[in-house]
Amino acid sequence: MRDRDALHLAHLDALQQAYAGHLEAAGVDALWIYSGAPHQHYADDQTATFRAYGHFVHWAPLPELSHSWLLIRRGRRPLLQIHAPADFWHLPARRPDAAWSQAFEIRLSDEITPPPCAAKRRAVIGDLDVEQAKAMGATLNPPALLAALDHGRLHKSAHEQACLIDANRAALAGHAAARQAFERGASELDIHLAYLAASRQRESSLPYDSIVGLNRHAGVLHYQHYEQTLPGERYSLLVDAGQRQLGYCADITRTWAGPEAPDLFVSLLASMQTLHQRLVAACAPGVAFVALHRQMHHELAQLLIEHGVLRCSAEAAVDTGLTRAFCPHGLGHSLGIQVHDVGGRQDAAGAPLPPPASDPALRLTRTLTPNMVVTIEPGCYVIPMLLEPLRRGAEAAQVDWTLVERLAPCGGIRLEDNVAITPSGQRNLTLAADDGD
Amino acid sequence: MRDRDALHLAHLDALQQAYAGHLEAAGVDALWIYSGAPHQHYADDQTATFRAYGHFVHWAPLPELSHSWLLIRRGRRPLLQIHAPADFWHLPARRPDAAWSQAFEIRLSDEITPPPCAAKRRAVIGDLDVEQAKAMGATLNPPALLAALDHGRLHKSAHEQACLIDANRAALAGHAAARQAFERGASELDIHLAYLAASRQRESSLPYDSIVGLNRHAGVLHYQHYEQTLPGERYSLLVDAGQRQLGYCADITRTWAGPEAPDLFVSLLASMQTLHQRLVAACAPGVAFVALHRQMHHELAQLLIEHGVLRCSAEAAVDTGLTRAFCPHGLGHSLGIQVHDVGGRQDAAGAPLPPPASDPALRLTRTLTPNMVVTIEPGCYVIPMLLEPLRRGAEAAQVDWTLVERLAPCGGIRLEDNVAITPSGQRNLTLAADDGD
Repeated sequence: MRDRDALHLAHLDALQQAYAGHLEAAGVDALWIYSGAPHQHYADDQTATFRAYGHFVHWAPLPELSHSWLLIRRGRRPLLQIHAPADFWHLPARRPDAAWSQAFEIRLSDEITPPPCAAKRRAVIGDLDVEQAKAMGATLNPPALLAALDHGRLHKSAHEQACLIDANRAALAGHAAARQAFERGASELDIHLAYLAASRQRESSLPYDSIVGLNRHAGVLHYQHYEQTLPGERYSLLVDAGQRQLGYCADITRTWAGPEAPDLFVSLLASMQTLHQRLVAACAPGVAFVALHRQMHHELAQLLIEHGVLRCSAEAAVDTGLTRAFCPHGLGHSLGIQVHDVGGRQDAAGAPLPPPASDPALRLTRTLTPNMVVTIEPGCYVIPMLLEPLRRGAEAAQVDWTLVERLAPCGGIRLEDNVAITPSGQRNLTLAADDGD
Repeated sequence: MRDRDALHLAHLDALQQAYAGHLEAAGVDALWIYSGAPHQHYADDQTATFRAYGHFVHWAPLPELSHSWLLIRRGRRPLLQIHAPADFWHLPARRPDAAWSQAFEIRLSDEITPPPCAAKRRAVIGDLDVEQAKAMGATLNPPALLAALDHGRLHKSAHEQACLIDANRAALAGHAAARQAFERGASELDIHLAYLAASRQRESSLPYDSIVGLNRHAGVLHYQHYEQTLPGERYSLLVDAGQRQLGYCADITRTWAGPEAPDLFVSLLASMQTLHQRLVAACAPGVAFVALHRQMHHELAQLLIEHGVLRCSAEAAVDTGLTRAFCPHGLGHSLGIQVHDVGGRQDAAGAPLPPPASDPALRLTRTLTPNMVVTIEPGCYVIPMLLEPLRRGAEAAQVDWTLVERLAPCGGIRLEDNVAITPSGQRNLTLAADDGD
């Protein structure tokens, strides 16, 4: 057996033990997990893109499998019912034969109904309505159990971290191709397609819509278009794009300076790269992610002061909200089966851990512990909607608007790696993928 | 004003007149049309692909616009409310400035609520629930009105036909690139990406998921994967893929023989091309599409007899269901804002026109009339699930199974053009696009 297969089986074994505890605590003998079903476009016969429920994928590495079920019981092998109707219109799902499949009792079914179960106390989780759960004699989505399962996904097994490294490796190949396409003068659409070709995936398999922004578009945080035509000048390219391996997401951002970029942008980009790696190196058990996010703002303030963009002290720049106008998003988030993985804003019991009022977009508010995997993604942008009020406000004199105007055609900078917390510090999974680990 | 702009405004003018009649017949003074909202993946913060409601796009060529509204009233310019919140995360929707926008009163709004209306008798159509409609004081999706609107989409204006030709032209560029990628030995994934690059679109803008099947996959009617790796041999490629222009869909299928294709497949493909064009030429006002579908089966029977695959008479091949095992899908469907456009299986009053029991997959059961646009897509496949029962049945001796086995690695053939019905016959829009019309 390959090492990776052994890791995968160990992951499933640990999951079985963890679920046994969760089910016992919830007073449940048997738990169905429903993979879900695709949504149909309204008044149309075409379907929207689909993703299987995260807790389903935590067990079964089949992120596109719909209408399927898991049945988890203490002390019994999990049952995986795969929907595989006799259907000549589509290629039916096949019985998996990879090593992980040994951990399951696998049943192929042409039915979409759940596998039967004689256990007394039943629960079901997933995208079902109350009536369906009632017909199954099961409690639907019990909150305490869901909180425990979400918390369980926060820490990644060795198998999960290996999948994340694989996904990072494929994504990095995409980023290299995107950079090459940019250098030969490709449009956003063609850079997007070059990324897909090199990372070996179709668009609907991406963990999230790739952000491919040239010039000012690099300053639109979730820029959602791909222009088909070339801009006249190339100031910058920002690509935020991932990949999925056995259900686990990479989420990497790179920013490149184009031939028309002003020197200020080039040196700001170099400083941001240093700042980025300093923030990665600061990840360690016991570090509160909210504190690390604040550190980003302080370092960003210093950086903007060094480059002459800000004229006040770093403390003043943070306190008056100046840095938040240059970077309105959070430092990062938990990463796993979902790109913004579950459990980032609640404790193990499900109690909410809301972000500070000054940082409403921060998706991770926990203290780092070993085997959490997070993104570290500082940014610095020229966002007119956020800067214009400052230009007309009390802090206007603290900003060199000439330099801001010089940076504006470049849109912005974001740099993002995926980082696993270790007992003594951290491991940069993106770097590990690049090193061929 | 460009000719095309004039056509577009004439389309909207005719729509205004048609709606006036429909609203009067329905006893409605004002009609809201809701564009819809994207569906969120379950327990996730990412959204599935979205398409605006067909009747919304019939007016406003904005097929990706969500949370927006039209308000249609007799004798008044239609009001278009575009959702454009102040949002630095995304590039907000802009006020359209193309010629068609003159036909509308356009309002940008950061609200998702409908524009107010003082009219007495109100209705709303779209993806809303009863409570939302009640809050608007409006009847939700009145069936007779919807039937009339669906019927109204069956016949395409000159503007709509021009859009369909544009979409065909872009799609043909994609098909040419797909063929070239096949010839240089690309994988299904890379053929898919070559198609997107040449037809200038991203995957989520496609009117339907492209079918890109090499070898046996060409025989899976709605083959839904893209293999990343190359097969050892190249017998065949089937590509069924479209494009959208101002909301209107092309839907074109091409099949190519590979270097390893047996002579039988090559000659069958040539015969299917002739059969295809004969069926296109048979399209004319007054022709019942069900009868044309039956003609396809008779001609397919003759073709299979000529090639030695069948040994009975053409009548017997059709009557015993042999040809339906080789081609289980319908001859075609209505085409427009949706790839399987509305109104194909009901009359003008909404009464159902079900397909014959022998042809349950036929999506168009109407008699052709001028300005209908349909696909004509005969096929011939080796589908083991359908042929195996024949091989064990009473008709087994009517089939040369050696020839079937020879064709099996090629999967199948489908050829599909888009055809507009004219007063005297038909116009092949796919050919028109190729001619540069």
